[in-house]
Amino acid sequence: MDWGTNLWDQNDVIDKHTQAGLDLLERYIKFVKERTEIEQNYAKQLRNMTKKYSKRGSKEELECKFSNHASFQEILNELGDYAGQRELIAENMTANISDKLTKYLQDLKQERKTHLSDMKKAQQNLESSFKHLESIKKRFAKEWAEADKATQQADKLENDNNNSKIDVDKAKNHALARMRTAEECRNSYAAELQKYNKEQNSFYYTEIPLIFNKLQDMDERRIRQLAEGYCQFSHIEKNVLPIISKCLEGIAAAGTKIDEKKDSKLLIEQYKSGFERPADVEFEDYSQGVKPSNSESALNPLKGRKHKIFKKHKITQAEKHMVLFMFSMI
Amino acid sequence: MDWGTNLWDQNDVIDKHTQAGLDLLERYIKFVKERTEIEQNYAKQLRNMTKKYSKRGSKEELECKFSNHASFQEILNELGDYAGQRELIAENMTANISDKLTKYLQDLKQERKTHLSDMKKAQQNLESSFKHLESIKKRFAKEWAEADKATQQADKLENDNNNSKIDVDKAKNHALARMRTAEECRNSYAAELQKYNKEQNSFYYTEIPLIFNKLQDMDERRIRQLAEGYCQFSHIEKNVLPIISKCLEGIAAAGTKIDEKKDSKLLIEQYKSGFERPADVEFEDYSQGVKPSNSESALNPLKGRKHKIFKKHKITQAEKHMVLFMFSMI
Repeated sequence: MDWGTNLWDQNDVIDKHTQAGLDLLERYIKFVKERTEIEQNYAKQLRNMTKKYSKRGSKEELECKFSNHASFQEILNELGDYAGQRELIAENMTANISDKLTKYLQDLKQERKTHLSDMKKAQQNLESSFKHLESIKKRFAKEWAEADKATQQADKLENDNNNSKIDVDKAKNHALARMRTAEECRNSYAAELQKYNKEQNSFYYTEIPLIFNKLQDMDERRIRQLAEGYCQFSHIEKNVLPIISKCLEGIAAAGTKIDEKKDSKLLIEQYKSGFERPADVEFEDYSQGVKPSNSESALNPLKGRKHKIFKKHKITQAEKHMVLFMFSMI
Repeated sequence: MDWGTNLWDQNDVIDKHTQAGLDLLERYIKFVKERTEIEQNYAKQLRNMTKKYSKRGSKEELECKFSNHASFQEILNELGDYAGQRELIAENMTANISDKLTKYLQDLKQERKTHLSDMKKAQQNLESSFKHLESIKKRFAKEWAEADKATQQADKLENDNNNSKIDVDKAKNHALARMRTAEECRNSYAAELQKYNKEQNSFYYTEIPLIFNKLQDMDERRIRQLAEGYCQFSHIEKNVLPIISKCLEGIAAAGTKIDEKKDSKLLIEQYKSGFERPADVEFEDYSQGVKPSNSESALNPLKGRKHKIFKKHKITQAEKHMVLFMFSMI
């Protein structure tokens, strides 16, 4: 089923159809470029977000020892990789679809233009040949009519006895000359007609089919390229899905490995002072004379601080523990 | 390993640590909300694009009979479903993470506030009890000193023979009375000390541990909820991946089933005129008298059109085919 033989008289249809085909190709390229921008924008937003929430500075370094803080940081890292995959989609769509098809579209536009102008040329040639044939045919008709008239006149003179033999011969010769010219026109008309029919034949049976089939082949190549572009649109994203799944698994893993008991224990390890809880306050029996109640204060690790706080009066055991405790309140 | 016994003197550490925990929870909620917005925006852009490129109108209906046009429409439909899945991610992140954790954060903030204020109250009670004990101790010390002085004075008078027995007895009685008061002060100090030590003991061994362990339990609940939120962040997207894969498969299928030969054939079926290609132009022999060259023009399907174009002169067979052909050029 080829256009050349089946649509030989549908030049306008083929013109419009091949144009619509290129329009679709162009529209698909635009579409992929738009998707690419959306994808880049999406990746950029994800990336900025992960940067924004990532921890920096020593205070956060410390917090990151706790599993529930550390896991959030891991999630941010995974999401950063995720964004990288979306960027990859955008890059591959540009390289493997938009750029390729844009180049291809230019070639097709040029090729189509060439075929259509060849068509126009062939048509114009046939039309001018036809006009030429017509003029030659008319000349033959006119010449024959005049030759016919001359012959009739010569016969008329011959049949009238009042005319001299000389006049009759003159008319007969004139008619004969006329007839000879008419015959020549008849022959060149016949020759021109044969030439034209050969031309018309090659136009309808060779030139048109050849050009229309080239256009059909061009259109089918366009469709194959477009189909390939459609498939790429899916494959490019399908190719990154496994890595995207890995990122999601990494996020889930970061959530699963959190251990709240470990985090509580870590706080103890980091901040346990090791001090004993305060003993009972001793009875200071002034009836036996006051003992130096800060006897063992030299051993007290908080002694230094203590003096800063209680300058004015002598420190008792109980006060020392008060200090110890109140420090923990600051 | 509990905070109550191990961090009994690290109130400020526990205060800061639990605050940092709630800050992390709050930061994670913000983070998820931001991701949700990015996801919604991404889905919206994809949706608008598919709408923008979707075909409407009868001309496009016609083109959509061609597989390469139809497949593009299918890709747009699949991408619409794809966008729907991204919207679903956004919705589920809001419902299953942001909203849940926001409510939970409010409760935890309230709970923490309560525990810390209980702590402050207990501390203030102990401090005031201690001050009270101190005042009673000082009174005992003062009273005892005076009783001691009175006793020494009475002894001095007795050893001096110049004094009357009356004066000596008077002094002795005074000293005895002083001593009795001092003894009373000594007893109430002893009682107060015992009371205070009981209080101090329950503060360090019961109240603080209880409150600190409540804060630890609260912090561990927060961590479990946060960990669940982390996992949800992954699961919500993982759950839509199979449907997203289906969309991508649908797109690939649309690209694969395109048949350029079928499309070429369809154009023929739609536009084939069925006319024969022009026969040779006939020889019109005026020497035999002109034949009516449009003898069979009554059968010519283009007769109607024909007359519109060539009004002025008689139509020949060749001209008729010229018309037939030139129509296909319009």
